[in-house]
Amino acid sequence: MTQTYERVALIGLGLIASSMFWAMKRAGAARHVTGYARSSETRDTARRIGLCDQICDTAIEAVKDADLVVLAVPVGVMGHVAAEIGPHLKPGATITDVGSVKRQVIDDVSPHVPETVHFVPAHPLAGTEHSGPESGFATLFDNRWCLIVPSENSDTRAVETLEAFWRALGSNVDVMDPDHHDLVLAVTSHCPHLIAYTMVGVADDLRRVTDSEVIKYSAAGFRDFTRIAASDPTMWRDVFLMNKDATLEILGRFTEELFALQRAIRQGDGDLLHDYFTRTRAIRRGIIEAGQDTAAADFGRSR
Amino acid sequence: MTQTYERVALIGLGLIASSMFWAMKRAGAARHVTGYARSSETRDTARRIGLCDQICDTAIEAVKDADLVVLAVPVGVMGHVAAEIGPHLKPGATITDVGSVKRQVIDDVSPHVPETVHFVPAHPLAGTEHSGPESGFATLFDNRWCLIVPSENSDTRAVETLEAFWRALGSNVDVMDPDHHDLVLAVTSHCPHLIAYTMVGVADDLRRVTDSEVIKYSAAGFRDFTRIAASDPTMWRDVFLMNKDATLEILGRFTEELFALQRAIRQGDGDLLHDYFTRTRAIRRGIIEAGQDTAAADFGRSR
Repeated sequence: MTQTYERVALIGLGLIASSMFWAMKRAGAARHVTGYARSSETRDTARRIGLCDQICDTAIEAVKDADLVVLAVPVGVMGHVAAEIGPHLKPGATITDVGSVKRQVIDDVSPHVPETVHFVPAHPLAGTEHSGPESGFATLFDNRWCLIVPSENSDTRAVETLEAFWRALGSNVDVMDPDHHDLVLAVTSHCPHLIAYTMVGVADDLRRVTDSEVIKYSAAGFRDFTRIAASDPTMWRDVFLMNKDATLEILGRFTEELFALQRAIRQGDGDLLHDYFTRTRAIRRGIIEAGQDTAAADFGRSR
Repeated sequence: MTQTYERVALIGLGLIASSMFWAMKRAGAARHVTGYARSSETRDTARRIGLCDQICDTAIEAVKDADLVVLAVPVGVMGHVAAEIGPHLKPGATITDVGSVKRQVIDDVSPHVPETVHFVPAHPLAGTEHSGPESGFATLFDNRWCLIVPSENSDTRAVETLEAFWRALGSNVDVMDPDHHDLVLAVTSHCPHLIAYTMVGVADDLRRVTDSEVIKYSAAGFRDFTRIAASDPTMWRDVFLMNKDATLEILGRFTEELFALQRAIRQGDGDLLHDYFTRTRAIRRGIIEAGQDTAAADFGRSR
């Protein structure tokens, strides 16, 4: 048992918050966990499946007396939620978030955090294509990375306690500054998602190839794209709008490279293609060695 | 036991051919299987692991007396191999291939097939990111689709026997014409692979984000791309060069769509993004319902 906070409040009850609850229970990381979601349907589901020690009907009630408040809502509404709960936070408490974008969230949330409360932004790099309170599970964060992104005036002890909390939930922890975080995530997450969405959209749109053909023959590569293109639309809309600059920068690099490969195909430059495809294998090897994926063929689907 | 051919010859001993051997053994689909690979190292490995009933040192020796000859080499060299073995094929035999491109392979191989031999092109839509004789396994084709792509003058009985053969190996079978095949595969396989290679290349190239950051933080989406970008470089070089027109057509559609989404991000058009991301979820559902992927969260990696 590694208790780091007495009372934790989860605002938003999707995949991340529900997984945090089960991981906290597994680790004994908090004595009492309250939860709040805007939709009464989500709150009912949470009560039915035993998510959180107490589900509250308002965010204000949920954060009362909490030592840690976790904003686990789409990044586009973090500011609104912070404005609502700010005046009700307990002096000495820590408020954190789990958003995939950091600079804009810091700008939106900070003005609403009282001086007596510590704001320590964070981002657990874990997820699946499923969403909602029933999609969570205790092992989601195991051996994944959680990036802690302290703002300039974050309290050192508050940062250290939050690090210990995420470690208790199974994560590895790194500290990163907001702008670098947003660039790294544009590369490792935001652009891959946008590209996957685009490719699936193209397939869906093509009159000369039917959806049923795309679906039947997807095992040839396409289906790996559909997994991430099935992620929560609201979450991802907000991510792109709020990490606009880094996303557009990386997309610019991407189209530049894609045009170069397209040109090599048109001109029949096999050497360029072969060299390019050889280089990308090393990255895959690195990911498997770092324990961030399985070496099982085809993710172990076929055996 | 569903024996469809007495003697089968596998030319090329990579992932597909080695999986075909194990699947044939499982089904009792052939009495005797010979194998040939250009590299003596591959032949030695095949002998060591018991791949094929007999490994031959020349392709000509391997195809002698074979009732079915399978070309399982990169699509760029199918024509050369056909020219070499053509005069040595047994009258009445069937020659097939497993290439990911059909129109160009038909054009390259057909001139070398004697009038007494049936040429029935095919393409099993199955694979993993691993390659080589040791990567094969008997269940690779189970519940996957094999597309039979008869040329205008393919013999009906030869086509039906090949269909029965692929069914015995675990596949579902569809018949398709060459040009439609190449377009469908450009969408479901060739473009997704090129896009994945490109995104991994961009990440590798970026000076401001290190490879070790990309690797550590890949679980946020990027790693799904690295699996298909780890596929065999020679095979894929040939695919793009030989399915040039369809690949470039679909890439054109892709960049057009990507630019539209990029513009929506720049202009802050959240509705357009949300609608687009919602539409793509339905395709994913279709793939899971069609048994072409697992609904397990994150491909079942995390639990």
